[in-house]
Amino acid sequence: MKLYLAGPDVFLINALGVGHQKRTMCQARGFEGLYPLDNKLPEDEAAIFAANQGLMDKADAGLFNLSPFRGPSADAGTIFELGYMAAQGKKVFGYSNDGASYAARAVRSHGPTAEEDGVFLDRNGHMIERFGLTDNLMINEAITSSGGFCVAKAEVGEPKLAAYSAFDACLAKIQGE
Amino acid sequence: MKLYLAGPDVFLINALGVGHQKRTMCQARGFEGLYPLDNKLPEDEAAIFAANQGLMDKADAGLFNLSPFRGPSADAGTIFELGYMAAQGKKVFGYSNDGASYAARAVRSHGPTAEEDGVFLDRNGHMIERFGLTDNLMINEAITSSGGFCVAKAEVGEPKLAAYSAFDACLAKIQGE
Repeated sequence: MKLYLAGPDVFLINALGVGHQKRTMCQARGFEGLYPLDNKLPEDEAAIFAANQGLMDKADAGLFNLSPFRGPSADAGTIFELGYMAAQGKKVFGYSNDGASYAARAVRSHGPTAEEDGVFLDRNGHMIERFGLTDNLMINEAITSSGGFCVAKAEVGEPKLAAYSAFDACLAKIQGE
Repeated sequence: MKLYLAGPDVFLINALGVGHQKRTMCQARGFEGLYPLDNKLPEDEAAIFAANQGLMDKADAGLFNLSPFRGPSADAGTIFELGYMAAQGKKVFGYSNDGASYAARAVRSHGPTAEEDGVFLDRNGHMIERFGLTDNLMINEAITSSGGFCVAKAEVGEPKLAAYSAFDACLAKIQGE
């Protein structure tokens, strides 16, 4: 099974090394990992997009690093790709170095909160989803409705953003199905 | 033409009012606006997901409010939906209340930056894309490659997050094509 490996890993200085490590971990579990080439800078934006799109189209399923990135949510590029593969009817799986709920992170980054008619508002007066999910409901429900799942595990190794522990736990769970 | 209206608008207290206003603005330009029901809290998460998915499947094209939300990027749910509709081969359009580049916002929220071998790093050592685009390249390139475009305009009216000025400018530009 070909797994597209999406995540903010591409923004790590050693992005190529992380990709190599994750492809090796996939192989050890009997999968083929497809890793985006986003990190080859400088390159033409359209070419990077087309290359990532080609890998997603080729993959059987997607494994998404949903670790929070520059805010309480997952990385924007990763979320885009999750939506793209969900629309293709492929199984999508999530993993994250942070097991807290989205709401908990939003309160931390955009509190203090106020309550109005039973609705929780951040400091800008914007509602905070209170479903207890790890990210925006469209992300979590897309994973569930595709037949996938999400694994969260605090990362002890480095780089934390690669979330190797949750990544391997997710691979093991897919393997066990 | 049926336009799916995605955005963090659903997190505004008067989300229903904003949706009504945007549907009316669509009508004035000869379009039918389809607005998500995400704001009906509390409701079953799976039901909200299925309802939004149904609207996207029914729409001919998508109009995405990419105004920054709880960080330098657009809202997570909105980005997911952009990926979903891009995969369906539909035209996707963006609009935003913020004309700054993603890089400029990331420097503001996650600076100070450092430079290493010509690469810009945020305070956590994560690379900052320097393409001068308004968000992650997957978002901007998906819009371009679909045949769509993105319109940014500082919002003077309220609520700023609704980005009414950019929304109407985007509708006018689609109408003029």
